[in-house]
Amino acid sequence: MGSHRIGDESRARGRIGLGLLGCGTVGGGVLSLLVDNARWLEGRVGARLEVRRVLVRDLEKPRSRACKPEWLTTDAEAVLSDPEIDVVVELVGGELEAKALVERAIASGKAVVTANKLLLAKHGPELVSAAIAKGTDLAFEGAVGGGIPIIRTLREAFASDWVERLVGIVNGTCNYVLWRMREGGLSFEDAVREAQAKGYAEADPTLDTGGHDAAHKLVVLAMLAFGARVSSDALCVEGIEAIEEKDHRYADRFGYVIKHLAIGVDRGNTVELRVHPTLIPKTSVLANVSGVLNAILLEGRALGPCMLYGRGAGDMPTAVSVVSDILDVARSIVAGASGLMTSGISPEPRALLPIGDVETRYYARFVTPDRPRVMAELARVFGGADVSLELLMQTAQATEAGGPVDVVAITHRAREGQMRDALRQLGSMDLLMRPAKVFRIEAL
Amino acid sequence: MGSHRIGDESRARGRIGLGLLGCGTVGGGVLSLLVDNARWLEGRVGARLEVRRVLVRDLEKPRSRACKPEWLTTDAEAVLSDPEIDVVVELVGGELEAKALVERAIASGKAVVTANKLLLAKHGPELVSAAIAKGTDLAFEGAVGGGIPIIRTLREAFASDWVERLVGIVNGTCNYVLWRMREGGLSFEDAVREAQAKGYAEADPTLDTGGHDAAHKLVVLAMLAFGARVSSDALCVEGIEAIEEKDHRYADRFGYVIKHLAIGVDRGNTVELRVHPTLIPKTSVLANVSGVLNAILLEGRALGPCMLYGRGAGDMPTAVSVVSDILDVARSIVAGASGLMTSGISPEPRALLPIGDVETRYYARFVTPDRPRVMAELARVFGGADVSLELLMQTAQATEAGGPVDVVAITHRAREGQMRDALRQLGSMDLLMRPAKVFRIEAL
Repeated sequence: MGSHRIGDESRARGRIGLGLLGCGTVGGGVLSLLVDNARWLEGRVGARLEVRRVLVRDLEKPRSRACKPEWLTTDAEAVLSDPEIDVVVELVGGELEAKALVERAIASGKAVVTANKLLLAKHGPELVSAAIAKGTDLAFEGAVGGGIPIIRTLREAFASDWVERLVGIVNGTCNYVLWRMREGGLSFEDAVREAQAKGYAEADPTLDTGGHDAAHKLVVLAMLAFGARVSSDALCVEGIEAIEEKDHRYADRFGYVIKHLAIGVDRGNTVELRVHPTLIPKTSVLANVSGVLNAILLEGRALGPCMLYGRGAGDMPTAVSVVSDILDVARSIVAGASGLMTSGISPEPRALLPIGDVETRYYARFVTPDRPRVMAELARVFGGADVSLELLMQTAQATEAGGPVDVVAITHRAREGQMRDALRQLGSMDLLMRPAKVFRIEAL
Repeated sequence: MGSHRIGDESRARGRIGLGLLGCGTVGGGVLSLLVDNARWLEGRVGARLEVRRVLVRDLEKPRSRACKPEWLTTDAEAVLSDPEIDVVVELVGGELEAKALVERAIASGKAVVTANKLLLAKHGPELVSAAIAKGTDLAFEGAVGGGIPIIRTLREAFASDWVERLVGIVNGTCNYVLWRMREGGLSFEDAVREAQAKGYAEADPTLDTGGHDAAHKLVVLAMLAFGARVSSDALCVEGIEAIEEKDHRYADRFGYVIKHLAIGVDRGNTVELRVHPTLIPKTSVLANVSGVLNAILLEGRALGPCMLYGRGAGDMPTAVSVVSDILDVARSIVAGASGLMTSGISPEPRALLPIGDVETRYYARFVTPDRPRVMAELARVFGGADVSLELLMQTAQATEAGGPVDVVAITHRAREGQMRDALRQLGSMDLLMRPAKVFRIEAL
């Protein structure tokens, strides 16, 4: 390409051309922000941001007032082949169609901004590599954590530091449901119904409550924090369905709250990635993250702890993140520095620490017959598996001798493999009247 | 200057020259991070970062292992006149000497990175204007919030949004002292002594405990968040000295914790800036910010709430922030886009809302004689001043009739002027055995 650099023409003409793929509520928000802040953004970029094309499926559907009818097209080619479009903003969502569009945009040397979490989780590393090879940028602040500036914090604030651990409340639906169970005494089912009524949960809530959405986000975060290229299918992923209201009450009694967390730890040779309900101390900053809010705690070797908190989803927060990305890539184009933002990401395949080797503390709740020696038998099995107990408590007396009673165990740190041995052995005895409920405990 | 742009020569020679002014513990940390991450930073910048000169007072004093003896000089001119130094990193601290050095560096067209909070609070707007006029950058992430990436979040993540309110725990000493009073039941004096023993408070702690350090930080934050050019002398600033251990206990009883907060609100025509101890609900995310940690909550019109949390001070967190700034300004130089980062800041003089017009809720503690009709008299005075009460409670009975007893009042929202009227009237009566303790309450 000689001395020709991406953006040379844009700089010469003093404006940056934008093309939107998709124009739903986030797209409408992006257009409003671009219109409302046009003059300010022009000052920051050093060139005017000019929307040229907006790809939609239906030309007749009413659009945001900020969307001019002459921009609309149903032909992707009108966006991707327009030489005056420098930045393509992908907001169609989904996986394969979005992937094809983004790949074509990158191949044409356009910078791409996307808020598509699924796309990033499934194909992030290859799309990043394609952008690096082409010398252009792929920006995706809106894809994880909605309005929380987590991507730029990992990319810029941690530029000379090393992320040792990240712990995130990254699914607003899970956080809302757990919060309402704890604060309002609701059952899981009632809390989910309430979340649905408020628009915080889908008709089929299992992608959220099963932990899979959080796993997708963890994969994207791990790519940036640990340079790790991993598949979400390989992670330990547990949802929140098994938690009962009484687990919140017991956790509270021992000084904990239950949160659904995405956890990543850089172990040097391996990386530890897991998504599951977790008991954390009430005094942790993450404990007070309530409702649908999200928070991500990063622990840097030099920086120490750093937490970001905010709206993890929602049209306007996501739109603000998308516009901040547009600003960044546009500035890079104007500066003739396209690709520098993205070139710092270099995900490599990294081995996952097997879940059996993960070490944490555990909360376990058993339903046992209320009879002598049950506690002794439980303690003996844990001891035999080398899992040492901090606490073993029968939470109440049964109404009749031999009737069911809750026993809660809290362990010291143990390898998950040992804990599973203990649970397997307990399961083979006549001690438990129902399967044990087991949740991990993290010091935060 | 024609088509000549700052950094043309640096780009041509493929390296960015750095000069440090000062080399204490933060400077040593900066040099270590630059050495340890040299290759990575070169990739991100697109040019090698080369330290050329380090200004010190004493050539004989032992330095960090990362500091090469041949860099050292006691002559500021050797740094400021070196044409191959593109970026000057000011770490001498203090006000006037630092100001003179930074002004000369800017006048020579060099980009400046500083972690000097006092300098920014006192002279931020004029230094920013000087940098803008010269087309260079002034970066100061390390000056507020230590390792917390608050400056870049305001500059970038909020680029297309509007900050409506910011509430920060920005002084680690105050937060530590209040936390130990509450958790450990320590007196103010004992908590300060403990903070001093741990190195969290100065021998003379009044700059911190009196709220002035927090006021300096609020002035810098207000410049970025509200485009406001204000003097810290004009702010309502209260410290934490008046708080007694029993105030923490009463606050706790009503569901609050006491935090020392810096608060800024954009009121349109005016900006409301104040620094004082504040009762906030225990359920707030700010309530669990403990020890010396800092946190800043931003409320964006579109983004909603966004909180950043981390180490607000400390050598390594500050060094990481300084290096992230070096990376930013170096990239801008390489890209030929010097000055763009800083040009977005345009502080203008803005009128402060007079403190008498500020509206909040109040916690007031009175020491009164334990005799009939005291509560009725208190309630009558508040009512007469149009301050409506949510709660009025005698916290215990005195050991003898007429003996001193604590009465706590919690008000609904009221103008500060009205509250002061009520307090003035109470002070003129024989009702109070000691001056009232009055702290504001904020819903967060």
